[in-house]
Amino acid sequence: MSEIAIFSGTAHPELAAEICEHLEVPLLPSRLTRFANDCLEVQLQANCRERDVFLIQPIVAPVQEHLVELFLMLDAARGASAARITAVIPHFAYSRSDKKDAPRISIGGRLVADLLVAAGANRVLTMTLHSPQVHGFFNIPVDHLHALKELAAYFRRYDLTHAVVVSPDLGNAKEAAAFARMLRTDVAAGAKQRFSDDKVVISSIIGEIEGRDVIVLDDEIAKGTTVVELMDHLRRQGARSIRIACTHGLFAAGALERLGGMDDVIEIVCTNTAPIPPERRTDKLKILSVAPALAEAMRRIHNGESVSVLLQPDA
Amino acid sequence: MSEIAIFSGTAHPELAAEICEHLEVPLLPSRLTRFANDCLEVQLQANCRERDVFLIQPIVAPVQEHLVELFLMLDAARGASAARITAVIPHFAYSRSDKKDAPRISIGGRLVADLLVAAGANRVLTMTLHSPQVHGFFNIPVDHLHALKELAAYFRRYDLTHAVVVSPDLGNAKEAAAFARMLRTDVAAGAKQRFSDDKVVISSIIGEIEGRDVIVLDDEIAKGTTVVELMDHLRRQGARSIRIACTHGLFAAGALERLGGMDDVIEIVCTNTAPIPPERRTDKLKILSVAPALAEAMRRIHNGESVSVLLQPDA
Amino acid sequence: MSEIAIFSGTAHPELAAEICEHLEVPLLPSRLTRFANDCLEVQLQANCRERDVFLIQPIVAPVQEHLVELFLMLDAARGASAARITAVIPHFAYSRSDKKDAPRISIGGRLVADLLVAAGANRVLTMTLHSPQVHGFFNIPVDHLHALKELAAYFRRYDLTHAVVVSPDLGNAKEAAAFARMLRTDVAAGAKQRFSDDKVVISSIIGEIEGRDVIVLDDEIAKGTTVVELMDHLRRQGARSIRIACTHGLFAAGALERLGGMDDVIEIVCTNTAPIPPERRTDKLKILSVAPALAEAMRRIHNGESVSVLLQPDA
Amino acid sequence: MSEIAIFSGTAHPELAAEICEHLEVPLLPSRLTRFANDCLEVQLQANCRERDVFLIQPIVAPVQEHLVELFLMLDAARGASAARITAVIPHFAYSRSDKKDAPRISIGGRLVADLLVAAGANRVLTMTLHSPQVHGFFNIPVDHLHALKELAAYFRRYDLTHAVVVSPDLGNAKEAAAFARMLRTDVAAGAKQRFSDDKVVISSIIGEIEGRDVIVLDDEIAKGTTVVELMDHLRRQGARSIRIACTHGLFAAGALERLGGMDDVIEIVCTNTAPIPPERRTDKLKILSVAPALAEAMRRIHNGESVSVLLQPDA
Amino acid sequence: MSEIAIFSGTAHPELAAEICEHLEVPLLPSRLTRFANDCLEVQLQANCRERDVFLIQPIVAPVQEHLVELFLMLDAARGASAARITAVIPHFAYSRSDKKDAPRISIGGRLVADLLVAAGANRVLTMTLHSPQVHGFFNIPVDHLHALKELAAYFRRYDLTHAVVVSPDLGNAKEAAAFARMLRTDVAAGAKQRFSDDKVVISSIIGEIEGRDVIVLDDEIAKGTTVVELMDHLRRQGARSIRIACTHGLFAAGALERLGGMDDVIEIVCTNTAPIPPERRTDKLKILSVAPALAEAMRRIHNGESVSVLLQPDA
Amino acid sequence: MSEIAIFSGTAHPELAAEICEHLEVPLLPSRLTRFANDCLEVQLQANCRERDVFLIQPIVAPVQEHLVELFLMLDAARGASAARITAVIPHFAYSRSDKKDAPRISIGGRLVADLLVAAGANRVLTMTLHSPQVHGFFNIPVDHLHALKELAAYFRRYDLTHAVVVSPDLGNAKEAAAFARMLRTDVAAGAKQRFSDDKVVISSIIGEIEGRDVIVLDDEIAKGTTVVELMDHLRRQGARSIRIACTHGLFAAGALERLGGMDDVIEIVCTNTAPIPPERRTDKLKILSVAPALAEAMRRIHNGESVSVLLQPDA
Repeated sequence: MSEIAIFSGTAHPELAAEICEHLEVPLLPSRLTRFANDCLEVQLQANCRERDVFLIQPIVAPVQEHLVELFLMLDAARGASAARITAVIPHFAYSRSDKKDAPRISIGGRLVADLLVAAGANRVLTMTLHSPQVHGFFNIPVDHLHALKELAAYFRRYDLTHAVVVSPDLGNAKEAAAFARMLRTDVAAGAKQRFSDDKVVISSIIGEIEGRDVIVLDDEIAKGTTVVELMDHLRRQGARSIRIACTHGLFAAGALERLGGMDDVIEIVCTNTAPIPPERRTDKLKILSVAPALAEAMRRIHNGESVSVLLQPDA
Repeated sequence: MSEIAIFSGTAHPELAAEICEHLEVPLLPSRLTRFANDCLEVQLQANCRERDVFLIQPIVAPVQEHLVELFLMLDAARGASAARITAVIPHFAYSRSDKKDAPRISIGGRLVADLLVAAGANRVLTMTLHSPQVHGFFNIPVDHLHALKELAAYFRRYDLTHAVVVSPDLGNAKEAAAFARMLRTDVAAGAKQRFSDDKVVISSIIGEIEGRDVIVLDDEIAKGTTVVELMDHLRRQGARSIRIACTHGLFAAGALERLGGMDDVIEIVCTNTAPIPPERRTDKLKILSVAPALAEAMRRIHNGESVSVLLQPDA
Repeated sequence: MSEIAIFSGTAHPELAAEICEHLEVPLLPSRLTRFANDCLEVQLQANCRERDVFLIQPIVAPVQEHLVELFLMLDAARGASAARITAVIPHFAYSRSDKKDAPRISIGGRLVADLLVAAGANRVLTMTLHSPQVHGFFNIPVDHLHALKELAAYFRRYDLTHAVVVSPDLGNAKEAAAFARMLRTDVAAGAKQRFSDDKVVISSIIGEIEGRDVIVLDDEIAKGTTVVELMDHLRRQGARSIRIACTHGLFAAGALERLGGMDDVIEIVCTNTAPIPPERRTDKLKILSVAPALAEAMRRIHNGESVSVLLQPDA
Repeated sequence: MSEIAIFSGTAHPELAAEICEHLEVPLLPSRLTRFANDCLEVQLQANCRERDVFLIQPIVAPVQEHLVELFLMLDAARGASAARITAVIPHFAYSRSDKKDAPRISIGGRLVADLLVAAGANRVLTMTLHSPQVHGFFNIPVDHLHALKELAAYFRRYDLTHAVVVSPDLGNAKEAAAFARMLRTDVAAGAKQRFSDDKVVISSIIGEIEGRDVIVLDDEIAKGTTVVELMDHLRRQGARSIRIACTHGLFAAGALERLGGMDDVIEIVCTNTAPIPPERRTDKLKILSVAPALAEAMRRIHNGESVSVLLQPDA
Repeated sequence: MSEIAIFSGTAHPELAAEICEHLEVPLLPSRLTRFANDCLEVQLQANCRERDVFLIQPIVAPVQEHLVELFLMLDAARGASAARITAVIPHFAYSRSDKKDAPRISIGGRLVADLLVAAGANRVLTMTLHSPQVHGFFNIPVDHLHALKELAAYFRRYDLTHAVVVSPDLGNAKEAAAFARMLRTDVAAGAKQRFSDDKVVISSIIGEIEGRDVIVLDDEIAKGTTVVELMDHLRRQGARSIRIACTHGLFAAGALERLGGMDDVIEIVCTNTAPIPPERRTDKLKILSVAPALAEAMRRIHNGESVSVLLQPDA
Repeated sequence: MSEIAIFSGTAHPELAAEICEHLEVPLLPSRLTRFANDCLEVQLQANCRERDVFLIQPIVAPVQEHLVELFLMLDAARGASAARITAVIPHFAYSRSDKKDAPRISIGGRLVADLLVAAGANRVLTMTLHSPQVHGFFNIPVDHLHALKELAAYFRRYDLTHAVVVSPDLGNAKEAAAFARMLRTDVAAGAKQRFSDDKVVISSIIGEIEGRDVIVLDDEIAKGTTVVELMDHLRRQGARSIRIACTHGLFAAGALERLGGMDDVIEIVCTNTAPIPPERRTDKLKILSVAPALAEAMRRIHNGESVSVLLQPDA
């Protein structure tokens, strides 16, 4: 495969820079112009011709701006004769929109997958999709990483004798179980009934909580409504301590402040798939970097080496 | 929309006939020829030109035979100038193959969805997909029914005061919870760890079982390995009685005999999305018909009326 | 063709309501939900099955929000089995991005055209594209209206004996010439050299200005930089009076205030393809409604009658 | 082109192994899993990333099983980021289904060609299609070999002074003529009228048979009905000896026994495009290997060398 | 289906007019403009919106002009919102280019089929393709008529007691056999070896000619080289009389004069799928009209009635 | 990228040969066969397998012949397993057909772009499209050169103190302005109203002509009607001298004779994107070669170097 060429959108240039540092290649310049009528135009400012192009852009708020920007980057790279274009999407927000649970709604996950391909993506590198089936929404090769290894490595510093991994939702329970196996702890899950996007009732927790050091694990925390709701149950059921872990720390609408303000929440651990501005970071917040993992995956994609080995528990 | 035209493949002509009876239209003849070299050829033996064609074929064992037959039926209908072609697939077996949980495996659910479209399907009517995300594997309109109403109507004949709905797997727990709400019972779930397709270990059941009348609910029962495994746990945790319910009663490899032979299994309830030959039916087996539901959905699809109303709990 | 069903996005519900009034059909309800992670979800809240669906959404600021909303509306309508989906886009902002005048830039107009089709659009109804070639960016039928008749009807109230239509740009000169023919006036044009999106120098005006009543005609006014620049030239060349006309009155960044504040600008005339909030309207601003034209086009599209007759000068 | 990677389906692993031996590369492992519900899953068990992947699978009985397996292999290879995927299909059974000679039938040859592409095939290597037009059913590059050189090389060991090549069918007569030219013999053909797939009447033989050493040549022999029918005519017209040759020796339904049991049939010669289990082989049966030809074609495809030279009579 | 709308290209307006007369609908006007730079532009001069559009254009010499004109007509009809577009191609010249019998050649038949679909064709109505497999080159519905009934009806006026139908080529022998069955005569065929497009050697005729009244049957006669070559053989083998019949009478390069000038050729019978200018018609030439058959097929396509019944021998 | 392989169609083999000379690679042989029925067949007579194939064919008169030939060349190259296929189209005649300025007309530019892709083109190299938006008609990478640098280099030999560049049409005025900047002269433009393809009225010239040395610049001159019309205006407005320049010198219908015959036309300068037979060349005609520019672009495309640098004024 030809020379590598890495560009970043405006969503998370710090992550892109960190990835490039690990790969020891320069982050190439690009330019986003906003027309007077609010349309965007992208210019990739380095030769793409016959290059192995990677475009790094997590789909984080403002989601629609970053999404359309990514479409334009893909179009620009295709028009500029890139040999292959990989969309590196550390957080793919639309993976939450993965089923039709009401009549006549959009299935955003599948739609955006199709639009990415229509815009020119040849392959996708992403992390911790909301459900594993979203992989199948793409008809191009997808490398789907998770951050369980990074999270597990971090939590192993603690005494986990009485720990239990708790999934706030049955839907995420399989991933929590996998994480528990990595930490050699028990697992529990909230039986959640969702009424709307920001109103949730957790009817019960199935599994042992009493006297346990709880590690709540979710794929993403946005407003944190589910986790907040879960706190009450954990307290009532006698949790000894609570730590919160997630891959995608979006922390919208004061979620970080609300969760951080709870005395019994000792620590909030997330990764940098989404940017968190310095002024919003607190002592309780621990941000792990996925840049090494993404860089290694990109290196392997570029060189034609196996990426699946990165997913093995002992890799 | 033009006149309706319904054909059946060879997978389940009885169901097709029953649907046509409900719709009060004839089941049109088709012919499946096997060439000397084992290739199949389909002939639709009634005019399809500008008709609203429905092809009824559950993808049941022998799965590959029935699948290719459906591809050929679709091709024949398209070549015969059908105005619209709906593949009616009461059981879509490949929906189990919905994610990439090992390196370099096929995602059969997405692949078959694409092949159905490539063969000529304009829309799909199906029932109880293994996961709701499989809906998003199709880029054509899908009407996705479930049989919870039929199952609930049946179980309401029993005293459900002490009943609990048990999902053998966390993955199916959301559907079990919905079913429990319809029956106004509690819900529990097995925390299953799958090692291979026919070797499974259930590590624990989360939820109350002791002294309860258990209704096990699964989407499909094939070899029944998971359910058999669950039985041990249910007994050990003191279930008072056990009934088994599922939408797709495939009952491969003596599953029906094995489950029916357990004394504490009072009843096995399934629907006729897959055919069950008369000689394999037993006293403990109760087969509910989904023909009325499918017929009503087809009537509404043909007439351009809402199908989603059929999915509402009180419809 | 089946029954008509009209939905509006959130970009310009007033225009949609006015169109529906002209057509004497109800504007059907739809719902836009924003997830905690900033993703959007659309629900069309009336039966679309086999309906002739029209989705009204001008692509105006915030452009990316409205564009992705339209993609989701298209996806929802397709998934809901619409018989045909027409995207009604009174202002298609991305038509400005119609050529590759720098290396490695996106051609947003073509890209968005492709994405609209990928999302489910079967046809497009639009107005005054930035250049007529953008029509060819779509491989689905496009009905491309203009507002010259509405503008001409308005200006005929004035004495046009000494009037001249002035295009700020040679690129728009053909349309200005057509407008001048409708008003039976002369035409002139600025020879503009564009340096960047918001810095422009007009080197000269070709045509007679001295002592004339000038009607400046442009397709869209966003920041109005070009028109402001033109003013100086018009004054220097002795224009007797100045009126400004355009189809798309976007008026970003205080353009309305800036132009309206010029004493020699007697009047600014635009249409309602883009919404203008009441508080920004001034005495000098005259907004003509294109709702009758769009409604008539939609009626003809629905009934299979010619739309091209609407484009004839004497229609 | 990158490194070669060869996998075999379950249809004919012996042929795949023999090809790999000629190419001096290992046959990489793959795994076919059958789910409890009879669905198949394929895992390619060696890195495919950026490899030049060849998947060897003749479409032989059970045809539908082998066909769907090939679709899944293609999907797995595509999802695993293969650089290029060549489906090596030594016998493409569905090429018999190449025209629409009755109303509303499937054209299986074209359909399967489309499905192979939809599943991920980038190119096809095949042998002796039932008619040369089937080549045009594919819109991807096809390398279409024949086995005439192998067959001719074998028959040259005999005294061919009085030999005549006989095609059982006018449809295959052109190929028989080409074969006759290679052997420098005369050619004759049965004028067959086909009534159904396994009932055929040969009305006459056009060409000289009396006193000749007949070599019957067909593309495939399945049930052998046509050839059996031809025997009577050959005898009645005074053939001196009869040998039977074909590329694809499928020998279904006891064909081998029936033909071999005829005293005047001296020899049956076929190739190994389809597997023939050892227990069915007889003294009269001679199996020629096409592995060298396929291996050479694969080597040339991989290296970008001309394959057409292999088709020249003197190559 | 909506109202019918029929347009003709410039290849054969007489046939189009005759078809419209049979259908009792007007032939709608269209306009072909040639730009100064030799590009073509088509305007369909009647409303196509939601109409069932038929575009009549045999692909006859000058083939490239007529083909591109048809592409442009399809594009115009699609852009004009036709409900359905049927390309009526009575003679599809490129069907001769149906296989790859030399390295690196185009397969024009498949290519043109794809281009017709890319240009907007929804279905095709054609007649006597060079080989039946060409049907499978299209992935849209094709109605493939033949003119055997018209030809047979004509020849039944003669005493056929000693008649034999002779195919000049083994490739066309199946059609000749079908024709012979309709006339209840014997069949024979030339064993032709083709060296190049206009140099052919017939090595022998298989079948009885001596004392027979020969009816030569071919699908098309262009330069007539094959038929001329056949004449010598027929004479040498003692044919009593010779008549020539074909569907497509192209008669290029003086073929009509050459064949008509042979004394023993009593009659040349063709159809009007291709236009023959009045000045080239001779006493020996009999032109049968396929307009009634095409009109009836179009009526049935429009009304959604079976077309296959037209193909039955006794229809 | 693999080895380069360059073929020429029959439109302009001299240009292809000249390009190959500059690239120091052989022009590979190809063969165009015309069937008796006027169909074309292309054979590329050198190995294309895994080669970087360039097919050189300007779309010049006879346009339809050369266009279909190019489609067939693309199909042949694709079928022959080319690694990448670039259509080199120095003059793309159909770019004139770029908008829908009358009801129900074809948009030939977009249609032909789609057909080129359908036939197998992976990328396009072209020169001076009629409007820059035509670039966006292609969804494959396009390298769009212009010949302004070649033309400017030529005209710099003259004293340009009093020169003015005149565009016959406002539509081409932007290009004329760019050319004027390169020559550091003024610019003027005819305000043309087009009535039909060969009847045009120029209503006025905007800009200074009196006493100037005029350089008329157009993209193409076919019949030259516009330029002839412009002459009158230039004379009436007192032009001192007139030179005519264009990229595409098509000179149809005696244009060269007509323009050359005017005494005040000193010189006609064009490039060799279209062939001009020696016998039509005159003393007043100067033909500049674009072969060096095309060769350099092809070299860069092949090597993956930037092509956009060639477009910079100082490159």
